[in-house]
Amino acid sequence: MRHIIDLSDLTEKEFADLYKLTTNIIDRPEGYTDACRGKVLGSLFYEPSTRTNLSFSTAMMRLGGSVVGFSDPGSSSTAKGETLKDTISMVSSYADLIVMRNPREGAAKAASMYSSVPVINAGDGGHLHPTQTLTDMVTILRLRGSADDMKIGLCGDLKYGRTVHSLLHFLERYHNVQVYLIAPEALKLPDYMIRFLNDHSMPYCEVNSIDEVLPELDVLYMTRIQRERFVTAQEYKNLEGSYQLTAEKMKRAKKDMLVLHPLPRVDEIAQDVDEDPRAVYFRQARFGMFGRMALLLTLSKLPFIRAGHQEIGAHGVRCSNHKCITKTEPYLPLEGTPGSRCPYCDAPLEMLL
Amino acid sequence: MRHIIDLSDLTEKEFADLYKLTTNIIDRPEGYTDACRGKVLGSLFYEPSTRTNLSFSTAMMRLGGSVVGFSDPGSSSTAKGETLKDTISMVSSYADLIVMRNPREGAAKAASMYSSVPVINAGDGGHLHPTQTLTDMVTILRLRGSADDMKIGLCGDLKYGRTVHSLLHFLERYHNVQVYLIAPEALKLPDYMIRFLNDHSMPYCEVNSIDEVLPELDVLYMTRIQRERFVTAQEYKNLEGSYQLTAEKMKRAKKDMLVLHPLPRVDEIAQDVDEDPRAVYFRQARFGMFGRMALLLTLSKLPFIRAGHQEIGAHGVRCSNHKCITKTEPYLPLEGTPGSRCPYCDAPLEMLL
Amino acid sequence: MRHIIDLSDLTEKEFADLYKLTTNIIDRPEGYTDACRGKVLGSLFYEPSTRTNLSFSTAMMRLGGSVVGFSDPGSSSTAKGETLKDTISMVSSYADLIVMRNPREGAAKAASMYSSVPVINAGDGGHLHPTQTLTDMVTILRLRGSADDMKIGLCGDLKYGRTVHSLLHFLERYHNVQVYLIAPEALKLPDYMIRFLNDHSMPYCEVNSIDEVLPELDVLYMTRIQRERFVTAQEYKNLEGSYQLTAEKMKRAKKDMLVLHPLPRVDEIAQDVDEDPRAVYFRQARFGMFGRMALLLTLSKLPFIRAGHQEIGAHGVRCSNHKCITKTEPYLPLEGTPGSRCPYCDAPLEMLL
Repeated sequence: MRHIIDLSDLTEKEFADLYKLTTNIIDRPEGYTDACRGKVLGSLFYEPSTRTNLSFSTAMMRLGGSVVGFSDPGSSSTAKGETLKDTISMVSSYADLIVMRNPREGAAKAASMYSSVPVINAGDGGHLHPTQTLTDMVTILRLRGSADDMKIGLCGDLKYGRTVHSLLHFLERYHNVQVYLIAPEALKLPDYMIRFLNDHSMPYCEVNSIDEVLPELDVLYMTRIQRERFVTAQEYKNLEGSYQLTAEKMKRAKKDMLVLHPLPRVDEIAQDVDEDPRAVYFRQARFGMFGRMALLLTLSKLPFIRAGHQEIGAHGVRCSNHKCITKTEPYLPLEGTPGSRCPYCDAPLEMLL
Repeated sequence: MRHIIDLSDLTEKEFADLYKLTTNIIDRPEGYTDACRGKVLGSLFYEPSTRTNLSFSTAMMRLGGSVVGFSDPGSSSTAKGETLKDTISMVSSYADLIVMRNPREGAAKAASMYSSVPVINAGDGGHLHPTQTLTDMVTILRLRGSADDMKIGLCGDLKYGRTVHSLLHFLERYHNVQVYLIAPEALKLPDYMIRFLNDHSMPYCEVNSIDEVLPELDVLYMTRIQRERFVTAQEYKNLEGSYQLTAEKMKRAKKDMLVLHPLPRVDEIAQDVDEDPRAVYFRQARFGMFGRMALLLTLSKLPFIRAGHQEIGAHGVRCSNHKCITKTEPYLPLEGTPGSRCPYCDAPLEMLL
Repeated sequence: MRHIIDLSDLTEKEFADLYKLTTNIIDRPEGYTDACRGKVLGSLFYEPSTRTNLSFSTAMMRLGGSVVGFSDPGSSSTAKGETLKDTISMVSSYADLIVMRNPREGAAKAASMYSSVPVINAGDGGHLHPTQTLTDMVTILRLRGSADDMKIGLCGDLKYGRTVHSLLHFLERYHNVQVYLIAPEALKLPDYMIRFLNDHSMPYCEVNSIDEVLPELDVLYMTRIQRERFVTAQEYKNLEGSYQLTAEKMKRAKKDMLVLHPLPRVDEIAQDVDEDPRAVYFRQARFGMFGRMALLLTLSKLPFIRAGHQEIGAHGVRCSNHKCITKTEPYLPLEGTPGSRCPYCDAPLEMLL
C-alpha cells in the first residue's frame, strides 16, 4: 500500500486496518487533530470536482495538515504547459502526499510512476474513483455492521456509472451478496461486468423498476440518469416513474434499508425522501471524509522515497482507448502484446501500425 | 444567536458580548492563536468578493482554524449542478461553520434552514450584508467610544447602497443619532427607509453636497456612486464636485471626524485624503477582520446539531422579487398571505395564480 | 532588508544569513514546523503562476503559517476594480507578509510603497523575479559548496530570459566566474547585459551550440526557447540540435556538472536526461521551497509598521516602458530627469510632453 489507484489494490488486511482506523477517527475525532501536523497535501484537480476536492481538503485539515494545489485547469499555468511527469516531479518535491483528479483515463497510474510521495487517485476520467468506493464501503460497514449476507439494489445508469462498477468489484470480497440490477435497457450493466459477476459467483438479477424489488432490499444504491443519454425528453419522462425514488415508494421498503447515493443527485431521489432516516446519502458524504482522513493518515506515515527509475520499453503496441493518458503523454512506457490490458487504463492494447 | 442572517437579529446583550470579545482580540490577539484549532470553515462564494472572502479566511486562520470552499462559481461544479439545499447539506457534513455569499436574495436564510452548523451571511444579493455593518459598528465604537450623540453623514448612493440601509437599521439602537443624507436626486434614500427613520424617531435631513454639512459631522460615511447609474458622463461629472471628498474639503471638518468607507472606493475619495489621520477606511477593514474573528469564535462554540425537519407549507403565495432565492430553489417552503413579507428576502408576497 | 524587490538589494551579509538559515532548514526541517505559527501570508497572483504560487504556499505552510489571497485575476473582484495602492493597503491590514506576482513592470516596487508589511516580488512582468535567483543560488551553493571558480553555461533564450539576467547580476559577487553564452543569433544576450559583464570584469564568450563547450562546464543553466519567437517551424527545427540537451550529449560532460533549469521545460531537455544524477532541476525546485521558507521566516520577524507617507513629486517626466506600472496607476510619484532610470521598472524616463 503506497499509491491508491484502485481500492481493489488493497489486501484484505490493509483494508481491514484502514476501516478500523476510520472507525477510530469517527468515534474519537479529537484524538487526530494533530496527526498530520506539518504535512502538506498537494491537491491537483485537472477538472473541477468541488465535492471530492472539499472532502479531501477538509480531511487533511482535520488532521492538522495543510493543502496546496489547484482546483481547476483554468487557474493553473502548470496544468496546461507541461507534461504530467514534470508536474508530478515538481509537486512531489514540495508536498508529502498527492491527490489527483484528471480527465484522462490511466492518469493516476502514470502519475504514481514519477512521484516520490504517495499518489491517491481522486478519479481518472471514467476509469476509477477508489475513494468513492471507500466512502460507500465505510457507510455500509458502519451502518449495517457487515457487507456479508446483503441484498443490494443498484439503480440508474449502470452502463457508464463507474462508482457502480468499482463497488461491485469490491463487494466480491464479501459472502452471500445478492445483486439486483435496476436499469433501463439502454443503461444496463455492460457485458464485461456481467462476466465479472459470473466469474466470481455473485448472484444477480436484472429488473425494470425499483418497485419490483424494493421490499427485498437491504441496501439501495441510487445513481444519476443523465438526461442527455436519451433521445427525447418524452422517453426520459417515461422512465422517471420506474427509476425515481419517492417517499411514497419508501413505505414498502424494509425498516432498516439504507439508501445510498454518490451525489450530486438530480431528481432520481425526490426531495421528500430526505427526511427519512433510511436516506443516508448526506451521512455517507460525512463517512467519506472520515475514510479519507484514515487514508491520508496511513499514507503520510510512509517514508519519503525517490521515484523509481523507469525502463522505457519497446513501443510495439498502443492503447485502444482514445481517452487513455498515453495518448497525451507519449513518453509513458507501454509494454505487452496486442489484446493484453493497458497498464494505465485497463483497455485492450492494439498493434502499433 | 445561531445563524447570522442580519446583524439586527442579535439582541443588545448578544451584540455587546460580541463587541467586547472583538476588543479583547484587538488588544491581545496572541491570546486567540489557537482558539479555533481543529475547526474548519466552509467558505462558499457563489460570486467573487475578494475583500470579504479574504477577511473571513484571514479571521479563521488567525484563530488557528482552517478554510475550505470555493471563491467563484466558475471553479465549482457543485455550485452549478445541484440545489442549494444539497450543497449546504453536504458542506455542513464536512465543516464546523459556513460563510456564504450568493447573488440570490434570501439565499442566506434558505441555507440556514438546511444546515446543521451555523451559517453566516456574507451578502445575499442586494439584500443584507451583516458583517459589513459589524465592521462599521466596531470602527465607530472603537474610535469614538460610543455611537450615541453622533452626527453622521451618509454620502453617495443611498438608494441602492445596502450597507447604508443596514447601518441605519442598526443605529436605531443608539441615542441621539442625527442623520445627514447627502445624495443626488436620483440616488436618494428610498421611501421605506425614510419611513423607518420616522418610525424610530431618528432625526434626519437631506442635503445636496458634502460642503453644506461637513463642519457639523462626527462621522462621514462615504459610498461609491456607480457611473452607470447616470445617463451621461457629463451628468456624472457635474455631481463629482458635490459628492467627492478631497484634502481641501477636509480642512473644514472637525479635528476628530471619522471618514469611513466600505471599500472598494473609486474616486469619491481623492487619493490625497488617504494620509489624513481622520481617514480611517483602511483601519476599518482591519477592524472588520477582528469583528469577524469574534463572530467565528462565538459561533464555533455552539454544539453540532442536525438540521431541523422542515414543514413544507401549502404554496398559495409566491415572492414578488424576481431575484429572490425562491425563484431558483422551488422546494423552499413559503407561507403567508399576499402582502406579507417573504421570509427569505423580505419582499412582499403575492398571490400565486 | 524589508521588502524583497530584487535579490541584489540584499547586502552580502544579509544574503549569507539567508543562505545559512536555508541550509539549517534543509538539514533540520522539523525544527521549523511552528516558526510562523499564527502568521498569515497574503498571496496576490495577478496572473497565474502555479509553480511559484505552490512553492510560496508550501513554504509558508511548512513553517506552520497560513495563506490567503487569489491565484488568478479572474477570481478576484478586487484585482480588477481598484488601484494597486488600495488593494495593498487592504491586504496589508489583514496579512503579516505579502507575496505578489503582477504582469506590470515595477509593480512590486510600487506595492512596497503602500504596504505596512514586507512585500516579496514573485515576478513583475519581464522585470525581476528575485526568488528564482535565490532558488538558483541555493542549488549551486548547496551542491557545489561555492559559486567561486565556476564555469557556467547559459543556454537558450538569453535575450528575453529574465532569470538569466538576474542570475548574472547576482554572480558578479563571486570570484572567477566564467560565463559561456549559448544562444542563437536572434536570442543573444542584450547589449546592456554584455556591458554589465564588461563593467564587472566577468569573462564571457558567446558560442553557437552546447556541444562546443559542454566538456568545460561546471554548471549548465538551460532555459526555454519559445517556438513563437521564430519565423518558421523549420528554422526552429534547425536550432533544436544545437540548443537541446540529450542523454547522448551528457556523456561528454564532466562527472559532477550540474544541469539547472528554472522550469517548466518543454523539449530543450530530452526526457532521457531526467534519470541522470547530474540533472538537478527537480531538486532545484525543492531547494527553491527551502529558500522561500528562509525568506518568509526572516521577514516575518520584522515589526509591524505603518506605510510611510509618500511625497508626490512634480510630474515633469514619464517612464518610456509601456508595460510599466506607472502607466496604469497614475497616482504613483515619479521624479527624475529624462534619461535617468524609472524607480519602479528601471527603464529610462522621458520628458512629459
